[in-house]
Amino acid sequence: MQLLLSAAALDRVKDRIAPFAGDLDIVTVDGPDSFARDGVAIPPEEVDPDLAWTTLDAYAGGQMGALIGRILKGTRMQWLQTFNAGLDAPIFKSIIAKGVRISKSNAQAVAIAEYVVGHAVSLILPIDEQRQAQAQKTWKMTPYREVSQTRWCLIGYGSIGREIAKRAKAFGAPLDVVRRAAGADEYADSVSTMDALPTLLPKADVVVLACALTDETRGMADAAFFSALKPGAILINIGRGGLVDEDALRVGLDTDQPGRAVLDVFAVEPLPQDSWIWEHPKVRVSAHTSNSGQGTVGRGDDLFVANLERFLKGEPLLNEAHPSEVGL
Amino acid sequence: MQLLLSAAALDRVKDRIAPFAGDLDIVTVDGPDSFARDGVAIPPEEVDPDLAWTTLDAYAGGQMGALIGRILKGTRMQWLQTFNAGLDAPIFKSIIAKGVRISKSNAQAVAIAEYVVGHAVSLILPIDEQRQAQAQKTWKMTPYREVSQTRWCLIGYGSIGREIAKRAKAFGAPLDVVRRAAGADEYADSVSTMDALPTLLPKADVVVLACALTDETRGMADAAFFSALKPGAILINIGRGGLVDEDALRVGLDTDQPGRAVLDVFAVEPLPQDSWIWEHPKVRVSAHTSNSGQGTVGRGDDLFVANLERFLKGEPLLNEAHPSEVGL
Repeated sequence: MQLLLSAAALDRVKDRIAPFAGDLDIVTVDGPDSFARDGVAIPPEEVDPDLAWTTLDAYAGGQMGALIGRILKGTRMQWLQTFNAGLDAPIFKSIIAKGVRISKSNAQAVAIAEYVVGHAVSLILPIDEQRQAQAQKTWKMTPYREVSQTRWCLIGYGSIGREIAKRAKAFGAPLDVVRRAAGADEYADSVSTMDALPTLLPKADVVVLACALTDETRGMADAAFFSALKPGAILINIGRGGLVDEDALRVGLDTDQPGRAVLDVFAVEPLPQDSWIWEHPKVRVSAHTSNSGQGTVGRGDDLFVANLERFLKGEPLLNEAHPSEVGL
Repeated sequence: MQLLLSAAALDRVKDRIAPFAGDLDIVTVDGPDSFARDGVAIPPEEVDPDLAWTTLDAYAGGQMGALIGRILKGTRMQWLQTFNAGLDAPIFKSIIAKGVRISKSNAQAVAIAEYVVGHAVSLILPIDEQRQAQAQKTWKMTPYREVSQTRWCLIGYGSIGREIAKRAKAFGAPLDVVRRAAGADEYADSVSTMDALPTLLPKADVVVLACALTDETRGMADAAFFSALKPGAILINIGRGGLVDEDALRVGLDTDQPGRAVLDVFAVEPLPQDSWIWEHPKVRVSAHTSNSGQGTVGRGDDLFVANLERFLKGEPLLNEAHPSEVGL
């Protein structure tokens, strides 16, 4: 069986997979259309993987096209470990339609949860007010509503949502979860389905979009959603830009619904230079970078190593996607 | 028995203490030297309390002098519930020396823990970098070391330390505790006494001073302490200003030991206008206000109500100070 991955990714895990992957034909991608075996270049026609791993380094290094191209052209592909948490990009539907199994990544969940909780806490606490007082050399008390006194609503409750909930609960914040299936959870004060949003949104001080982008969720944060928000609420979107109707958001901000928005994802990325979003005083913009914690790579390596061993032993994969997630 | 407290404090709790405090002679302090019973002014000589409660509202409202004055002049004082967490002010030694029992407050612990974790997280995460990129309309990834990858050292582990540890652990940060007595703890990866600091400080990314100010701890953060720090470490002091040798801190900052300091307390408060601390680019200053969360009052009320009932029933008090804490 042939395994295709980036040279950088192989470097990181080769010692750990050696004990159980000795029989694999391991091929690395080194450039837009260059491949190698044991560091020696091979022609692209020798690359026909059974297994593949897409990694953040390949994406950043411009090798993702070659990786995906070989996966799509492959005649034997059985399993892909991706670095993506969400499979809304159409390419994943094409891959699963070929009969390939895909396991998703939860390696970025910790980093994204830190982004969400860090931004929320930095907005709730009077840190900016304290910095302003310092700049003016003013000795001033800064009373504030505690994080423990805020109510959170998490829309979407996969691995990212759970990591957010764990941290918010440590602050003592009451927390409502909205997901596909209702039911109890150790961190959640309630678990509901989407139809509960009109009841939950008016109570929430922090609303987090952490769900997948599907036909059901596309544009879910629309005019009705924003007019249901408690004035002053903080909206954080780390899901997908397509979850938010950006025109409706702009109107909502005028009435403080939400009072602040923290956006890591946008309808169009990179966010166009002429977008109103860049300069809105109530909006924080980041560049689809909430996953950029330096622990993400190590957790992704751990996941791949575990899943490769599971695949080779015929055991269930961690985080395997169901075809229904891509509309199949 | 006579109970002395502020009118505002009585308003908040009177319904809750009524069931068990019906026989008390309740006297309120309304100004620098004015007192009342059932809202009717009474002469100061009628005020000779058995029980007293000092509250943040009395402090802010300028009634603390009258409260403390009556406690010190009192001939019958048995118990004082204070809003203070630390009893280093000499007045507490005088009160305990009279044979008065003092129960301390832990109501501010949640607020102070939010201050500590909020400032630490806001410095560890690339929030400022993201805000700068937004100001320049630059679409830029912001890789960062995660909170989960930082090691914390908490010096002092009373109610405040535990609330800090609970939140830091939810972020997955390894955490060493230094306190008077070593031993295991659910949130701590290690619990040591002060003599372990030379080993622990070089490993810590976040160092928090959360201990009482005593003869043992006064000036503990001195030149040797700072030179033991890992370069770039964040120092946070929410204990007392006297814990830190501010001249040594200034020298330490030159070599990034610490790399950032977050100071809520100072050797002299309010921090003098001509202090170098106000303008140092690596230092955040706040005005002894880390306890200013709006949940503090409610938690303090809960504690007083519980302790009053305990006192009247002859049960052990929550958070009762041992005379050794004030050097007796």
